[in-house]
Amino acid sequence: MRSGLRALAEIARIDEEADVVVVGLGCAGAAAAIEAAGAGARTVVLERASGGGGTSGLSGGVLYLGGGTKLQRACGFEDSPEAMFAYLMASVGDAPDELKTRLYCEGSVAHYDWLLAQGVPFKETFYLGVSGEPPTDDGLVWSGSERCHPFRDLARPAPRGHVPQHPHQTGHVLMRFLIESAKRSGARIETDARVTALVLDADGAVVGVVASRFGVERTIRARAVILATGGFIHADDMLRRHVPLALRCKVRVGAEGDDGSGIRLGMAAGAATLHMDKASISLPVTQPWGLKRGILVNAQGQRFINEDAYYGRLGEAALFHQGGRVWLVVDDEVFEEPDYVKRVAAAGETPDELERELGLPGGSLGATLALYNRFAKEGRDPQFGKQADYLKPLERAPFGAIDCTTDKAIYAAFTLGGLATDADGRVLDPEGVPIPGLFAAGRATSGLAVGSYSSGLSLGDGTFFGRRAGRTAAAG
Amino acid sequence: MRSGLRALAEIARIDEEADVVVVGLGCAGAAAAIEAAGAGARTVVLERASGGGGTSGLSGGVLYLGGGTKLQRACGFEDSPEAMFAYLMASVGDAPDELKTRLYCEGSVAHYDWLLAQGVPFKETFYLGVSGEPPTDDGLVWSGSERCHPFRDLARPAPRGHVPQHPHQTGHVLMRFLIESAKRSGARIETDARVTALVLDADGAVVGVVASRFGVERTIRARAVILATGGFIHADDMLRRHVPLALRCKVRVGAEGDDGSGIRLGMAAGAATLHMDKASISLPVTQPWGLKRGILVNAQGQRFINEDAYYGRLGEAALFHQGGRVWLVVDDEVFEEPDYVKRVAAAGETPDELERELGLPGGSLGATLALYNRFAKEGRDPQFGKQADYLKPLERAPFGAIDCTTDKAIYAAFTLGGLATDADGRVLDPEGVPIPGLFAAGRATSGLAVGSYSSGLSLGDGTFFGRRAGRTAAAG
Repeated sequence: MRSGLRALAEIARIDEEADVVVVGLGCAGAAAAIEAAGAGARTVVLERASGGGGTSGLSGGVLYLGGGTKLQRACGFEDSPEAMFAYLMASVGDAPDELKTRLYCEGSVAHYDWLLAQGVPFKETFYLGVSGEPPTDDGLVWSGSERCHPFRDLARPAPRGHVPQHPHQTGHVLMRFLIESAKRSGARIETDARVTALVLDADGAVVGVVASRFGVERTIRARAVILATGGFIHADDMLRRHVPLALRCKVRVGAEGDDGSGIRLGMAAGAATLHMDKASISLPVTQPWGLKRGILVNAQGQRFINEDAYYGRLGEAALFHQGGRVWLVVDDEVFEEPDYVKRVAAAGETPDELERELGLPGGSLGATLALYNRFAKEGRDPQFGKQADYLKPLERAPFGAIDCTTDKAIYAAFTLGGLATDADGRVLDPEGVPIPGLFAAGRATSGLAVGSYSSGLSLGDGTFFGRRAGRTAAAG
Repeated sequence: MRSGLRALAEIARIDEEADVVVVGLGCAGAAAAIEAAGAGARTVVLERASGGGGTSGLSGGVLYLGGGTKLQRACGFEDSPEAMFAYLMASVGDAPDELKTRLYCEGSVAHYDWLLAQGVPFKETFYLGVSGEPPTDDGLVWSGSERCHPFRDLARPAPRGHVPQHPHQTGHVLMRFLIESAKRSGARIETDARVTALVLDADGAVVGVVASRFGVERTIRARAVILATGGFIHADDMLRRHVPLALRCKVRVGAEGDDGSGIRLGMAAGAATLHMDKASISLPVTQPWGLKRGILVNAQGQRFINEDAYYGRLGEAALFHQGGRVWLVVDDEVFEEPDYVKRVAAAGETPDELERELGLPGGSLGATLALYNRFAKEGRDPQFGKQADYLKPLERAPFGAIDCTTDKAIYAAFTLGGLATDADGRVLDPEGVPIPGLFAAGRATSGLAVGSYSSGLSLGDGTFFGRRAGRTAAAG
């Protein structure tokens, strides 16, 4: 059979029988295991690293949840599944999965309660300072572009970043509780176990896996296999084929296991893939937030986005639409030390001087600033709709440009494409027909974010649809 | 087995034995059949329509060839494989296939001679009037952005559109000669025969096809199957998943058979796909060429491209980077009746009035025109590098805007993504390993154009790599 596949008829020995095998112990695998084992299925989790956690454990820990969770209400925010749905459908990319998005928004309040029930702690306080990952142990944070053009006019904004309690970067907290819960549920967890092949029966159904542990191969037969193996940000060959621009990003967000191996196993078994060309690209240049008062310009000296948008949105626009050649232009009043993107590319006493230093086309930056300043004085941004809070004419010399090119700045990338699944985690073939016995969840699949990102969608999507895959697989 | 696959062991009767089965009789299938049969292989071509030709037969007939073909030399143009390679590598998208591109450029002169040997007629005259498809029977034409920024500085320009002799739209001429040649070569051609499944042996190798003809199913066993089934511009479900913006294009370029069926057959057999999100999008608004003196502006009233670029390049930029919301702004001196995009969206005595009529942000169009005009007077375009021939200040009222939005204008789309193949036409699995017995060519594969197009790449690529697939399959 092809690479990544083994025929059941040719397997000499079955070493173990299970109901459900979960491949990978990040957030999606843990959630799947909890639900599968909780439903009474004999569940085995195989993790190739020496411990669970994966990319989820290294992450900021933000879960994108809403619709009026306990935490949102405790912090005094109103939200509704409808508002959350409208925001996500408008913001996640050109081809959102409407059914997944609807289920996610309608189930979000209950999913938060489920996280609490697993013991994951959330402090019922709100942090305003940054978007994404708070440097404090606060529980709620803005984590997307909800208050920004054009989304503020499409859906009532609410902060939806739910962050387990811990000072900064709390993915490991989430994973500690989820892994403990998986163990309590009765799932058997085996680390250092790398799945090398899916076992197919004569009808093409997936009926088990071959796993290698310290060089010893074992075969586990199972009614269902759930691939929760993560994305492919560490697979240069796949990036070159599908998202070549991601190769230019200085930071690749993902544990070592995000090498696409599970996606390729699924494809070998006949799975379709979706949105393999899409990636989340964070360009964290507007931290501290006062820097949103600057303007981002491209190689033609033009603005191209409202600078108050979520830093993931800035990165996607900068890399995919401007080829990674952008600068944040500030004046003396607006300038402050950026938290992450440190290099000043040029400075000048006039816009023309700055433009020359940057090598931008003659007159372009001056024209852009003149138009921006003219309306900023009135508290308006008719071209890009930046919030009035961040509109200030850029007039006080010297002028400076923070280098946001891919050569010099932090672009933090991870992939969004993966196996095509239905909303219950069944892996689909190119005709949209489920491959019997094969399930997937998390970054190994194409999930909620199909082209554009808000912080917390990965952990939110992974746990939510991981649970659904676990339940479906257990029900067989 | 899964949809699209049949196990050899379960096939009751083999109706025919062949060496090579070619699926689809467009340019790639015809070229593959000519070479396979010419090499002595028993070759059967199955075409689901009632006659051959497919999208190739409906096309303009342009083949992108160069490197110093007889036709280029007869028309007085110098070219080299190196210049052609440099142009293609820079212009076809972010992730060009270097090996395919190199082979194509190095083999282009001989490939033109091969076309002559099949009897395809080319008149040795050059047509300057338009890019793409000449309305005359001239043989050579500019068919890309070779003379435009940034390519003119990267590679010595040469016209490379080779057009079979016939007044306008000559794809049917090409196909008539190729089909005749395929018949002479000894290939058996069966029309109205739709391949519904690939036959796999126990090792997963492709060993034949099941075809349906007027409701009667037949099985043909073969050493090799070549999928030459075209793209998927008529598969709404696939467009929705992979290229949702293409659904907004008014014109879908392709014969009915371009429904992705062959791509899905290949995927069912374990093939990887590449660049499924990419499409060629033509926006033919700069014909007559004098209209290149206008400026294309986006919804922010900004320019975004050099307007002298090939109309496919304009369409890609307008749809994929500007969301299909663009207008061609002209003044009274530049305005003339466009050939294809007819609707005037607005007119005004001043830029401000035009801007209001179009609903563009206040001051934006005036600022854009002021900057453009300032440099156009000097014969320069520092922002986008439009050729001096087309630089003229737009100052003479009234001003007008030709509607180039997807709602109102012609956007002509076809897909560029497809099965992953090596340069010899072998279909590759996700690990890059050939699937035994399976080959593909033409739009069913990811070929030379991996994200951006020049006229003639489809027929050029399809015939060139179709021939290679035919030879490899026959040698198999």
